[in-house]
Amino acid sequence: MIIETLSVFPGVFAPYLDASIMGRAQAKGIFSFEAYDLRDWTHDRHRTVDDAPFGGGQGMLMKPAPIFEAVRDISSRGEHVPHVVFFSPCGRRFDEEVAERLSHEERLLFVCGRYEGMDERAYRLADDVLSLGDYVLTGGELPALVVIDAVVRLLPGALGDEMSALDESFSDGLLEYAQYTRPADYDGLCVPEVLLSGDHGAVDAWRRKSAIERTARWRPDLLAGAGLSPDEWELARQIMEQDHVTGADGNDDSATGGE
Amino acid sequence: MIIETLSVFPGVFAPYLDASIMGRAQAKGIFSFEAYDLRDWTHDRHRTVDDAPFGGGQGMLMKPAPIFEAVRDISSRGEHVPHVVFFSPCGRRFDEEVAERLSHEERLLFVCGRYEGMDERAYRLADDVLSLGDYVLTGGELPALVVIDAVVRLLPGALGDEMSALDESFSDGLLEYAQYTRPADYDGLCVPEVLLSGDHGAVDAWRRKSAIERTARWRPDLLAGAGLSPDEWELARQIMEQDHVTGADGNDDSATGGE
Repeated sequence: MIIETLSVFPGVFAPYLDASIMGRAQAKGIFSFEAYDLRDWTHDRHRTVDDAPFGGGQGMLMKPAPIFEAVRDISSRGEHVPHVVFFSPCGRRFDEEVAERLSHEERLLFVCGRYEGMDERAYRLADDVLSLGDYVLTGGELPALVVIDAVVRLLPGALGDEMSALDESFSDGLLEYAQYTRPADYDGLCVPEVLLSGDHGAVDAWRRKSAIERTARWRPDLLAGAGLSPDEWELARQIMEQDHVTGADGNDDSATGGE
Repeated sequence: MIIETLSVFPGVFAPYLDASIMGRAQAKGIFSFEAYDLRDWTHDRHRTVDDAPFGGGQGMLMKPAPIFEAVRDISSRGEHVPHVVFFSPCGRRFDEEVAERLSHEERLLFVCGRYEGMDERAYRLADDVLSLGDYVLTGGELPALVVIDAVVRLLPGALGDEMSALDESFSDGLLEYAQYTRPADYDGLCVPEVLLSGDHGAVDAWRRKSAIERTARWRPDLLAGAGLSPDEWELARQIMEQDHVTGADGNDDSATGGE
């Protein structure tokens, strides 16, 4: 996969994408990365990419011309036309389904805004407009890195032995079960006995129950799509009722569930 | 504000936080940053931070001991006890309200996981467990950067003249209105006439209408909290009905609204 960014801060991407799993995936040829500087498509001495908004108001907007010229110029290079991604609070909420869809593209170009916003006309270049959530950032560089990370880890061969793309949160429609590693007793905090039993059936049953409990407690909105049996629904109902009585955080002392 | 991270990739933060608005905020003394290497709290020759999960399964988990030792050690240094933030799909969804709350802390410590996950007991150290969204990343470093960016921009003096913390999406409960800058006609794509009129009352009315239209089209879930007048509700209803007839993307050719 070819991944490209267009931004006024082209230097912020490589330090993350050259490290760790992303760096290894690049070294293996799973993706290649290029960061373009939007200012290379300006024509004035100051390489101006922003201007004041029509109609007045605080802050500066990104001008349409450099973005149009850059996206058209970059798109005309190479074998594949890029799938162009913009970011906006008006966009579709990014989630694992979008990551999966983007992971099948040959070439992705992320256009990262800065300043107060972007001239509305520039969004006509977008194949996808994505939103990361209901919060405001100083620019589109971090959203692009988040999407790149989520997409690359889905590409075949990108994850090493220490991680697996399967067996994760959301893959069966539930939050992942609580996990533990050695020591079995850390400073008086003990791992659930069943996980030490070697009884695979009992471990699987405990994990399913843990996943349902955690989802009922923190993401009850996911339950409807998780294909629960009648008994599992009853368990989920009990957790939700109990948390309703004891307060939103549930009745255990661990931040994410002390099963 | 003191901002710290604990991670096995301490080098990925500074390139972003030293650049642009974040770098300027650091230079102005608005926040200071320190990245700690979790491996500094291991005691074996290989500086091991991960181990296999109890009960079997793919992948490796982060061990509890180095995290407990590191968080306690770091917390014991300095004048203020840090507010400790972990990331998990089980956590509270990060949004502007959480960013605002965190912006009042004296000291924030972000604990960034890697590998398949973290021993559940480590979450007992968390003052906040946050989730960025329903997608899987290779680690907690990018979520930490996203939260840091959203928090720092709210600190007094952090934003320069080219941006403003006010006058943004979500601040009045609606998506922001469409914005335009020069030229008024770019390659046949024209700015709405009213924005060129100099009539401030008409501009304000157009912007309010644009914000309501965009919110009705892409984020109708926000309408209930936006304090709309009866006439504004009627406008929102018309947009939603029209989009229902013409398809989810509405009936214009711009990705985020061709008002």
